[in-house]
Parts: sequence; structure tokens; C-alpha cells
Amino acid sequence: MSHREREFERIGGETVYDGSFVSVEVGRFRYPDGDEVERVIVRHPGAVGIVCHDDEHLILTRQPREAIGAPDSLELPAGKLEEGEDVMTTAKRELAEEVGLAADEWKVMPSYYSSVGMTDEIVYLVYATALREDPDAEPDPGERIEVVRWPLADLDGALAATKDAKTIIGLMLLREMRRGAE
Amino acid sequence: MSHREREFERIGGETVYDGSFVSVEVGRFRYPDGDEVERVIVRHPGAVGIVCHDDEHLILTRQPREAIGAPDSLELPAGKLEEGEDVMTTAKRELAEEVGLAADEWKVMPSYYSSVGMTDEIVYLVYATALREDPDAEPDPGERIEVVRWPLADLDGALAATKDAKTIIGLMLLREMRRGAE
Repeated sequence: MSHREREFERIGGETVYDGSFVSVEVGRFRYPDGDEVERVIVRHPGAVGIVCHDDEHLILTRQPREAIGAPDSLELPAGKLEEGEDVMTTAKRELAEEVGLAADEWKVMPSYYSSVGMTDEIVYLVYATALREDPDAEPDPGERIEVVRWPLADLDGALAATKDAKTIIGLMLLREMRRGAE
Repeated sequence: MSHREREFERIGGETVYDGSFVSVEVGRFRYPDGDEVERVIVRHPGAVGIVCHDDEHLILTRQPREAIGAPDSLELPAGKLEEGEDVMTTAKRELAEEVGLAADEWKVMPSYYSSVGMTDEIVYLVYATALREDPDAEPDPGERIEVVRWPLADLDGALAATKDAKTIIGLMLLREMRRGAE
């Protein structure tokens, strides 16, 4: 099975559900050998997760996640990309809205796909330091977010306390970066 | 915002799309303060990803992923849970079907949620060693899977070559395990 044999082309599809931020498409694809397949694809606008800390603490959130039945999911500050928005704009907005902070230093971290068999959701991870209070931040009370300051020295403990993919990947990347800097 | 204020209860919902393996539900939830929210939730049966290697090579797959437009996604062997199936049954079946192997040693690794704002998909990671050819394995040609033997000494290279969440998390966990064993 070579690369050439896997080069599909999209030959059609229809939207079977169009919701507030996700839609579901049944797409049709053709392979070079003539095979045609149908795939259910959840279309998602993409998201940004922000790995951020000061000298002593990781800045995390605790919030309810109805989809997984969890009232207290421990996560990176994060949010969905709005229509046409670039990653840094989303990152700055979510850092202000979710945890009331701004950052003076930003770095791009690797991005990843959440679940390649089902959705096109991509998650862009960014690294924010040189944090300061954002006087203009207006938290959205509807999100029910608690800001959690987690000791930076206990990254392993934070990893053990979450089951959220973006948070696991972001914190494991941070752990590698910090080891490299030692 | 305390734990108590985040303890939602499900008060209703309707299935707005019911597909081959995913369905989409618009659920309604109520919070202790009386607030009611609607959430679009993609229901998924869950999946298993298998971190496996022999003395010299990681066993990975390369396959087309229509959802992300990628003909050559580099991934752990993996598959969805069938109705009522336990994790180890899925793991053994997928290891045979995707890469033609059986394993004599299995360990449970951490599980995670793919995208907590959108879906209940959980991914169970398992670690398989003491690999041997499975004489009964019948690969599914429709999956267009190429087996990739990636040098175990180059875990970092494999991590740099994939953008798939389960593969990133599985290989980062493996890297930690191997460091601990050194």
C-alpha cells in the first residue's frame, strides 16, 4: 500500500447536521483504484489551548464539561476559533476571558488533530509567559470557570489530575521544554 | 465558583443525527443556580490505541484520514470499541487486523478524552509487547493501512512526524516509561 494508492479525492458530500459550532458532513471520497468510500466527518472551527505560567504556578482552569459528565475538568485555558480569526487573537481573548490575564511573551507550540477518524478539529497550542493582570478582562460568568494556580514544580501532579487531551499534550510538551532548559 | 455550583444535571435532550458510529445530541443541563444550558454533544463509542514495539522498532501505521485531508497519517494501531466490547478485546482485534500481530504482554496506560467541549469520545491506551506474528490475522484491505516499523531509538522522530492526538500522547507516555526504566 503506497502513498499513491492512498491519495483520495473528495467527490461530494452533504451536510446532515448544522449546529451552533459543529456541523456533520457525510463526505464521499474516491481512491485511485476506483474505490469510493463514505465518511462521517464532524466539522469544527479549530481551537487554541494556552500553556501559561508565572515563576511559581501553572495557570489552569476548572470547569464543567457536560459532554463527559464532569463538573470539575482541569484544563488549560482554551477556546474555539471564531470565524476568520487567527490563532493569536483567539489565544489573547481566551486568556483574558477565562483567567483575567494578558501575556507579553508568546511562543507557538506544536498543533495536533483531536480525533482523526471523526473530526477535522485541530488544536493550536501556544505558550504564554510574562503574565500580568488584564485590567480590561471581562470573565464570562456563564462559563463557570474557576482559575486554578497549580504549583509549577508539580507538573506531574497536574498531568495525573486531568484526562483532557489538549491539557495532557500541552503539559507534557512544557515538561520537555523545562527539562531541555535545565 | 465552587464544585457545588458546577454540579449540573441532565434534564433532557434529543438526537439530531444518528450515523454509523457517531450520533449528535443536543442535550439540556441544569445548574444548581437554576441556569439551564444546551450543549451539542457528539456521542462516540470510544476507541483503543495500542503502543507496541519489539526490541528495535515501534509498530505504527500509515493510513488515509479523509476527515483531515491526509493520505499518510502516521498513527498507533487503533480502533473503535464495538457495541458492548471490552478494551482488551478491541485491542487484540485491532492489533491483528491492522498490523498482523499478537502480543503476550499487555499493560493498561492512561486514558483520555479527545475533545471535552464537543464529544464524549474516550481513548483507552494500552501497551503491548512480546509481539509475535498472528497466523490468523486477516487484514482489512479497505482500510488501506501500511505497517510502519519505526526505529525505537527515534521516538522523537516519530513524534515529530505525526499530528494525531492518540499517537502523540501514547508515544510521549512511552518515552517517559523508557526514561524511568533506564
